[in-house]
Amino acid sequence: MERTSVRVIGRVLVLNGPNPNLLGTREPALYGSDTLGDVEKVCHETAAAHGLKADCGQSDHEGGLVDAIHEARTEFTGTAINPGACSHTSVAIRDALAAVERPVVEVHLTNIHRREEFRHHSHVSGVADAVICGAGTDGYVFALTRPARLIGEGAR
Amino acid sequence: MERTSVRVIGRVLVLNGPNPNLLGTREPALYGSDTLGDVEKVCHETAAAHGLKADCGQSDHEGGLVDAIHEARTEFTGTAINPGACSHTSVAIRDALAAVERPVVEVHLTNIHRREEFRHHSHVSGVADAVICGAGTDGYVFALTRPARLIGEGAR
Amino acid sequence: MERTSVRVIGRVLVLNGPNPNLLGTREPALYGSDTLGDVEKVCHETAAAHGLKADCGQSDHEGGLVDAIHEARTEFTGTAINPGACSHTSVAIRDALAAVERPVVEVHLTNIHRREEFRHHSHVSGVADAVICGAGTDGYVFALTRPARLIGEGAR
Amino acid sequence: MERTSVRVIGRVLVLNGPNPNLLGTREPALYGSDTLGDVEKVCHETAAAHGLKADCGQSDHEGGLVDAIHEARTEFTGTAINPGACSHTSVAIRDALAAVERPVVEVHLTNIHRREEFRHHSHVSGVADAVICGAGTDGYVFALTRPARLIGEGAR
Amino acid sequence: MERTSVRVIGRVLVLNGPNPNLLGTREPALYGSDTLGDVEKVCHETAAAHGLKADCGQSDHEGGLVDAIHEARTEFTGTAINPGACSHTSVAIRDALAAVERPVVEVHLTNIHRREEFRHHSHVSGVADAVICGAGTDGYVFALTRPARLIGEGAR
Amino acid sequence: MERTSVRVIGRVLVLNGPNPNLLGTREPALYGSDTLGDVEKVCHETAAAHGLKADCGQSDHEGGLVDAIHEARTEFTGTAINPGACSHTSVAIRDALAAVERPVVEVHLTNIHRREEFRHHSHVSGVADAVICGAGTDGYVFALTRPARLIGEGAR
Amino acid sequence: MERTSVRVIGRVLVLNGPNPNLLGTREPALYGSDTLGDVEKVCHETAAAHGLKADCGQSDHEGGLVDAIHEARTEFTGTAINPGACSHTSVAIRDALAAVERPVVEVHLTNIHRREEFRHHSHVSGVADAVICGAGTDGYVFALTRPARLIGEGAR
Amino acid sequence: MERTSVRVIGRVLVLNGPNPNLLGTREPALYGSDTLGDVEKVCHETAAAHGLKADCGQSDHEGGLVDAIHEARTEFTGTAINPGACSHTSVAIRDALAAVERPVVEVHLTNIHRREEFRHHSHVSGVADAVICGAGTDGYVFALTRPARLIGEGAR
Amino acid sequence: MERTSVRVIGRVLVLNGPNPNLLGTREPALYGSDTLGDVEKVCHETAAAHGLKADCGQSDHEGGLVDAIHEARTEFTGTAINPGACSHTSVAIRDALAAVERPVVEVHLTNIHRREEFRHHSHVSGVADAVICGAGTDGYVFALTRPARLIGEGAR
Amino acid sequence: MERTSVRVIGRVLVLNGPNPNLLGTREPALYGSDTLGDVEKVCHETAAAHGLKADCGQSDHEGGLVDAIHEARTEFTGTAINPGACSHTSVAIRDALAAVERPVVEVHLTNIHRREEFRHHSHVSGVADAVICGAGTDGYVFALTRPARLIGEGAR
Amino acid sequence: MERTSVRVIGRVLVLNGPNPNLLGTREPALYGSDTLGDVEKVCHETAAAHGLKADCGQSDHEGGLVDAIHEARTEFTGTAINPGACSHTSVAIRDALAAVERPVVEVHLTNIHRREEFRHHSHVSGVADAVICGAGTDGYVFALTRPARLIGEGAR
Amino acid sequence: MERTSVRVIGRVLVLNGPNPNLLGTREPALYGSDTLGDVEKVCHETAAAHGLKADCGQSDHEGGLVDAIHEARTEFTGTAINPGACSHTSVAIRDALAAVERPVVEVHLTNIHRREEFRHHSHVSGVADAVICGAGTDGYVFALTRPARLIGEGAR
Repeated sequence: MERTSVRVIGRVLVLNGPNPNLLGTREPALYGSDTLGDVEKVCHETAAAHGLKADCGQSDHEGGLVDAIHEARTEFTGTAINPGACSHTSVAIRDALAAVERPVVEVHLTNIHRREEFRHHSHVSGVADAVICGAGTDGYVFALTRPARLIGEGAR
Repeated sequence: MERTSVRVIGRVLVLNGPNPNLLGTREPALYGSDTLGDVEKVCHETAAAHGLKADCGQSDHEGGLVDAIHEARTEFTGTAINPGACSHTSVAIRDALAAVERPVVEVHLTNIHRREEFRHHSHVSGVADAVICGAGTDGYVFALTRPARLIGEGAR
Repeated sequence: MERTSVRVIGRVLVLNGPNPNLLGTREPALYGSDTLGDVEKVCHETAAAHGLKADCGQSDHEGGLVDAIHEARTEFTGTAINPGACSHTSVAIRDALAAVERPVVEVHLTNIHRREEFRHHSHVSGVADAVICGAGTDGYVFALTRPARLIGEGAR
Repeated sequence: MERTSVRVIGRVLVLNGPNPNLLGTREPALYGSDTLGDVEKVCHETAAAHGLKADCGQSDHEGGLVDAIHEARTEFTGTAINPGACSHTSVAIRDALAAVERPVVEVHLTNIHRREEFRHHSHVSGVADAVICGAGTDGYVFALTRPARLIGEGAR
Repeated sequence: MERTSVRVIGRVLVLNGPNPNLLGTREPALYGSDTLGDVEKVCHETAAAHGLKADCGQSDHEGGLVDAIHEARTEFTGTAINPGACSHTSVAIRDALAAVERPVVEVHLTNIHRREEFRHHSHVSGVADAVICGAGTDGYVFALTRPARLIGEGAR
Repeated sequence: MERTSVRVIGRVLVLNGPNPNLLGTREPALYGSDTLGDVEKVCHETAAAHGLKADCGQSDHEGGLVDAIHEARTEFTGTAINPGACSHTSVAIRDALAAVERPVVEVHLTNIHRREEFRHHSHVSGVADAVICGAGTDGYVFALTRPARLIGEGAR
Repeated sequence: MERTSVRVIGRVLVLNGPNPNLLGTREPALYGSDTLGDVEKVCHETAAAHGLKADCGQSDHEGGLVDAIHEARTEFTGTAINPGACSHTSVAIRDALAAVERPVVEVHLTNIHRREEFRHHSHVSGVADAVICGAGTDGYVFALTRPARLIGEGAR
Repeated sequence: MERTSVRVIGRVLVLNGPNPNLLGTREPALYGSDTLGDVEKVCHETAAAHGLKADCGQSDHEGGLVDAIHEARTEFTGTAINPGACSHTSVAIRDALAAVERPVVEVHLTNIHRREEFRHHSHVSGVADAVICGAGTDGYVFALTRPARLIGEGAR
Repeated sequence: MERTSVRVIGRVLVLNGPNPNLLGTREPALYGSDTLGDVEKVCHETAAAHGLKADCGQSDHEGGLVDAIHEARTEFTGTAINPGACSHTSVAIRDALAAVERPVVEVHLTNIHRREEFRHHSHVSGVADAVICGAGTDGYVFALTRPARLIGEGAR
Repeated sequence: MERTSVRVIGRVLVLNGPNPNLLGTREPALYGSDTLGDVEKVCHETAAAHGLKADCGQSDHEGGLVDAIHEARTEFTGTAINPGACSHTSVAIRDALAAVERPVVEVHLTNIHRREEFRHHSHVSGVADAVICGAGTDGYVFALTRPARLIGEGAR
Repeated sequence: MERTSVRVIGRVLVLNGPNPNLLGTREPALYGSDTLGDVEKVCHETAAAHGLKADCGQSDHEGGLVDAIHEARTEFTGTAINPGACSHTSVAIRDALAAVERPVVEVHLTNIHRREEFRHHSHVSGVADAVICGAGTDGYVFALTRPARLIGEGAR
Repeated sequence: MERTSVRVIGRVLVLNGPNPNLLGTREPALYGSDTLGDVEKVCHETAAAHGLKADCGQSDHEGGLVDAIHEARTEFTGTAINPGACSHTSVAIRDALAAVERPVVEVHLTNIHRREEFRHHSHVSGVADAVICGAGTDGYVFALTRPARLIGEGAR
C-alpha cells in the first residue's frame, strides 16, 4: 500500500504498550473491533500519505518501551505512543519521552476520562505535545498526521 | 478551498467558550498566533472538505454555551467544543452535552495536562466521545473530521 | 384547577436552573416523563390550593438566576429552587439565597446522592431551609406546600 | 383519628433511629417542639388520609433497626425512615434497605447540610428513593405521601 | 468633590461581581452599611484625587465580567476588581485577567479568611498584582491608589 | 450429618453479621442462591470432616457479635467470621477479635474489592490471621479448614 | 471504704463501652492489670469520698449505651464515660451526650494518641466537658472528681 | 503424589510475581519457611487431586507476567496469581487479567492488610473472582480448589 | 499552705507555653478567670500535698521550652506541660519530651477537641504518658497527682 | 516629613517577622529594592500623617513576636504585622493577636497567592481585621492608614 | 586506575535504573555533564580506594533491577543504587532491597525534593540505610564510601 | 589533627538544630553513640582536611538558627545544616537558607524516611543543594566535603 513516488521525509516511531495483542477480540464494545494489525496498517498508510515511514513496535515491558524511546531520540522525526496501562504507573516512560526533542503525540483508543478514576491521570501527558483519546483507530491517524504537519507538509 | 460539487451531508456545531477573542495577541508562545477568525476558517474548510457545513459560535457566558448546545441536539449532526475555562468549572455544560446523542469532540488548543493542576480535570471529558488537546488549530481539524468519519465518508 | 374563592395570601417564586427544557425527552428513566410545562403546571396548582400565587422562572445563566433571586427578597413570600447543575458550582446563587429571609426550599427531580460523586454536594443546601430530592415532580408539590405551611394555612 | 370508611390499600413502616425520645425537650430551636408522639400522630393521620396504615417503630440500636427493616421487605408497601445518627455510620442499615424493593423515603427533621461536616453524608441516601430534610414534622407528611402516590391514589 | 484642575492621566476599571446590589441592606454587621452607590462614589473620588478617571461596572454574570475585562486590556490603565462569589469558582475570569498587562488589584469587602472554608481560595489571587480584604470600602481606596502609584503620581 | 467415628479435636465458632437472613432471596446474582441455612450446613460438614465441631451464630447487632466473640476467647479453638456490613464500621468487633489468641479467619461471600469504595476497607482484616472473599459458600469451607490445619490435621 | 457520715449530694453515672470485661487478662502491658471490677471499685470509692453515689454500667451495644445516657439526663448530676471502641464510630452516643446538660467527662485507660491512627479521633470529645486518657484507673478518679468539683465540694 | 487414574479436566496457570525466589530464607516469621519449590509442589498436588494440571510460572518482570496471562486466556481453564509487589503498582497486569474470562483467584502468602499502608490496595483485586491472603501455602490450595469447583468436580 | 512535715520525695516540672500571661483577662468564658499565678499556686499546693516540690516555668519561645525540658531529663521526677499553641506546631518539643524517661502529663485548660480543627492534633500527645484537657485549673491538679501516684504515694 | 503640629491620637505597633533584614539585597525582583529601613521610614511618615506614632519592631523569633504582641494589647491603638514565614507555621502568634481587641492589619510585601502552595495559607489571616499582600512597601501605608481611619480621622 | 597493592575486602554492587544512558547529553543543567561511563569510573576508583571492588549494572527494566538485587544478597558486601524513575513507582525493588541484609545506599544525581511533587517520595528510601541526593557524581563517591566505612576501614 | 601547613581557602558554617545535646545518651540505637562534641570534632577534622575552617553552632531556637544563617550569607563559603525537628516545621529557616547563594547541604543523622510520617517532609530540602540522611556522623563528613569540592580542591 506504500505509494512508491512519495519521497520519505522522515520516520515516525509508533509504540504500543501492554495488552494490545488482545485488540479486536476483547471487549469490542469498548475497544472496537480493529486488531493491532489493523491499527498498524492504518499507521503505515497514514505515514506514507504524508511522506513518512512508520516503524511500529509493541512491548508489554515498561523497560522495553523505555529502550525503544531512547532510539527515538536520534533515529526518528516524531513519536506516536499509546502507553496503555503504563500511562498511569510509569515515570520511567515519562522521563524517557521528556528527553525526546521531536514531536510526541500520546494516543488512547478509548476515552480514558470515561473509565475508572485511576485511568484519568497519565504520567505521559505532562511531557507529550498533544494528546488524543476516544477516537479508536482514528486517533492514530491524527497521531501520525500531527508530526507530519510539524515537519512540514510542503516537502511532499 | 471549498469544493463546489460537494453535497452537504450534515451540519456541525463549533463552539468556543470564554476568552478566545484574545487568541493571536495573548501569549502566542502558549496559544499560537492564530486568531479566532483563523480557527473558524479552518473549521469551515475542514467541514466543507468532508461534505459538512460548520456553524461557529462563541460565548463568554456559560449559559450562552448551554443554550447553544440545546440546539445542537436536534439541529446538528455533530459538535466540536472548546469550553475553555468552563471545562474545569461547568457541570451545566456537561449536562447539556450529555443530552446530545450525536458525536461530541472536546478540543483544547493547549495541552491542558502541562499547565496548572486545576486545568487537568475537565467536566466535559466524561461525556465527550473523543478528546484532543495540545495540537493548536490542528485540533479543530480532527474535531471536525471525526464526526464526518462517524457519519460516513462514503456519502461524499 | 384554580379555586376562585381562595384569597391569595402570598406569592412564591419557582426557579429552575440550566437544562430543564430537556425534561420529558431526555433520559426519562432518570428524570421522568414530565416536561418543564408539566412541572410548572403542578406548581401553579399546588400554590393555588394553598392560597398562593406561583411565579415560575427558568434560566441557563447563573447570573440570570441570581438576578431573579434578588427580586425574591422583597417581592415573594417564599422560594422553591431547583438550581440543577449550578447547585454544585455556584457560590453566587448561594450568596443571593442567603440574603433571602423568607423560606427557601431546594428541590431536585432525581436523588442526587445516587448519582456521580460530584453531584452529592450542593452549595445551596447550606442556606436552604429544607431540601428534597428524588421525588420527581412531587418534590415541587412539597417545595410549594412547605412555605405555605410556614406562612400559615389558617389564612385560607 | 382513623377514618373508618377509607379502604386500607397498604401499610407503611415508619422507623426512627437513636435519640428521638429527646424530641420536644432538647434543643427546640434546632429540632422543633414536637415530641416523638407528635411525629407519630402526624404519621398515622397522613397515612390514613391516603388509605394507608402506618406502623411506627423506634430503636436506639442499629441492629434493632436492621431487624425492623427485614420485616419491611415483605410486610409493608413502603418505608419512611429517619435513621438519625445512624445515617452517618451504619452500612448495615443501608444494606438492609437496599434489599427492600418497595419505596423508601429518608427523612431528617433538621437540614443536615447546615450542621457539622460529619452529618453531611448519609449512607442511607444512596439506597433511598427520595430524601427530605429540614422540614421538621412536615418531612414525615411527605415521607408518607410519596409512597402513597407511588402505590396509586386512585385506589381510595 | 472632583478637582477640576487635575489632568486625567489614566482610566481605571472598577468591576464588581454578583450580589453587591444587596450592600447596605444585607448583613450590615458583615458587609458594612455602605451601598454599592457609596462604594462607587469612593472610587470616583479616589481616582480623581490621583488624576485618574474611574469607570464602574457590575454584573451578576461571570460572562459579563469576562467581557468587561477584555476591554480593560486596551482601554484602561489599571483594574480594581471584587469578583465576589465568582472569586471562588471562575477560571474564566482568572484567564481574562491573566491577559491584562496593566496593574490588577483584587479587593474584598470582608476578610474572606475569617469566613467559610470555601471562601479562602480565590482563583483570581493567583493572577492579581495585589490583594486586599477585610477593609470594607477602604479596600477600594487602596485598590485605586495602588495603580495610580504604579502609573506615577508625579504626572499630576 | 456428623460422623460419629471422628474424634472431636476442637470447636470452631462461625459468626455471621447483619443481613444474612436475606441470603438466597436477595440479589442472587451478587450473593448466590445459598441461604444462611445452606451456609451453616457447609460449615458443619466441613468442621466434621476435620474432626471439629462448629457452633454457628448470627446477629444484626454489633454488640451481639462482640458478646459472642468474648466467649470465643476461651471456649473455641478457632473462629470464622463474616462481619458483613460491620466489617467497615465496627472497631468494637476488631478489638474483641484482637483479644482472641486462637486462629481467626475473615470471610466475605462477595469480592468486596469489586464493590463500592466504602466496602474496600475492613477494620477486621487488620486483626484476622487470614482473609478470603469472593468465593461464596466455598469461602466458609476454607475458613473452617484453615484453623483445622493450624490445630493439626494429624489428630484425626 | 464508704464513709457513712457523708451526705450524698448527687449521683454520677459511670458508663463503660465494649470489651472492658477483658480488662486485666488481655494485653496488661497496654491496659494494666486492673479488672473491670477494680475500676468500678475505684469509682465507688472516689464518688463516696466526694459525697456522691456512683452507678456503674457497661454495654457492648451502642444502643445500650445510648439508652443509659438518656437516663443520665434527668437522674444523674454528672457522667463519666469510657466509650471504648464506640468513641471512634458512634455519632448516636455523641448525640445522646450532647443532650445531657450536666458535666460529662470522657475517659480512656490508654493514651489513644499513641495508638493506631483511627483511634486518634473520638466523636465524643466534641461534646464532653473534659477528656482524660492514658492514666489507667486513675483516669476514673479524675472523671469522678471533676463533676464533684463542679457540683460544689462545699456541700460535703 | 499424582494419581494416575484421574482424568485431566483442565489446566490451571499458577503465576508468582517478583521476589518469591527469596521464600524460605527471607523473613520466615513473615513469609513462612516454605520455598517457592514447596509452594509449587503444593500446587501440583492440589491440582492433581481435582483432576487438573497445574503449570507454574514466575517472573520478576511485570511484562513477563502480562505475557503469561495472555496465554491464560485461551490455554488455561483457571488462573491462580500471586502478583507480589506488582499487586500494588501494576495496571497492566490488571488489564491483562480483566481480559481472562475463566476464574481468577488472587493469593497472597501474608495478610497484606496487617502490613504497610501501601500494601492494603491491590489493583488486581478489582478484577479477580476471589481473593485470599494470610494463609501461607494453604492459600494456594484454595486458589487451585476454587477453579476446580467452578469447572465442576463431578467430571472426576 | 506547704505542710512542713512532708518529706519531699521528688520534684515536678510544670511548664506553660505561649500566651498564658493573658489568663484571667482574655476570653474568661473560654479559659476561665484564673490567672497564671492562680494556676501555679494550685500546682505548688497539689505537689506539696503529695510530698513533691513543683518548679513552674513559662516561655513564649519553643526553644525556651525545649531547653527547660532538657533539664527535666535528669533534674525532675515528673513533668506536667501545657504547650499551648506549640502543641500543634512543635516537633522540637515532642522530641525533647520523648527523651524524658520520667512520667510526662500533657494538660490543656480548654477541651481542644471542641475548638478549631487545627487544635485537635497535638504533636505532644504521641509522647506523653497521659493527656487531660477541658478541666481548667483542675487539669493541673491531675497533672501533678498522676506523677506522684506513679512515684509512689506510700513514701509520704 | 513629620508635621510638628499634629496631635498624637494613638500609637501603632509595626511588627516584622523573620528575615526582613535581607530586604533590598535579596531577590529584589520578588521583594523590591526597599530595605527594612525604608519600610520603617514609610511607616513613621504614614503614622505621622494621620496623627499617630509608630513603634517598629522586628524579630526572627516566634516567641519574640508573641512577647511584642502582648504589649500591643494595652499599649497600642492598632497593630500592623508582617509575620513573614511565621504566617504559615505559628499558632502562638495567632493566639496572641486574637487577644488584641484593637485593629490588626496583616501585610505581606509579595502576593503570597502567586508563590509556593505552602505560602497560600496564613494562620494570622483568620484573626486579622484586614489583610493586604502584593503591594510592596505600599502595603504598609495601607496597614497604618486603616487603623487611623478606624480610630477616627476627625481627631486630627 | 585500580591500585594493585590494595587487598580487596569486599564487593559493592552499583545499580542504575532507567534512562541513565542519556546522561551527559540530556539536560546537563539538571543532571550535569557526566555520562554513565564517567559515573561508573568514579565508582570503580572510589571502591578501589577503599579496598573494594565495584560491579556496575544498569537496567531500564524494573524486573532486571530486581534480579540484580537478588544476587546482591549473597554475592556483595554492600549496594549503591540509583533507581531513577523506578524510585517512585516500584514496590518490587523495595521488597528485593528489604531482603538484603548488607548496607544499602540510595543515591540520586539531582535533589529530588526540588523537582516535581511526584518525585518527592521514593519507595526505596524506606528500606535503604542512607539516602543522598543532589550531589551529582559525588553522591556515588559517598554511596561507595559509606559501605566501606561500615565494613571496616581498618582492613586496608 | 589539624594540619598546620594547609592554607585555609574558606569557612564553612555547621549548624545543628534542637535537641542534639542529647546525642550519645538518648536512644543510641537510633542516633548512634556519638555526642555533639564528637560530631563537631569530625566537622573540624573534615574541614581541615580540605583546607577549610569549620564554625560550629547549635540552637534550640528557630530564630537563633535564622540569625546564624543570615551571617552565613556573607561570612561563609558553605553551610552544612541539620535542622533537626525544625526541618519539618520551619519556613523561616527555609527562607533564610534560600537567600544564601553559597552551597548548602542538609544532613540528618537518621534516615528520616524510615521514621514517622511527619518526618518524611523537610521544608529545607527544597532549598538545599544536596541532602544526606541515615549515615550518622559520616553524613557530616559528606556535608563538609561537598562544599569543598564545589569551591575547588585544587586550591589546597
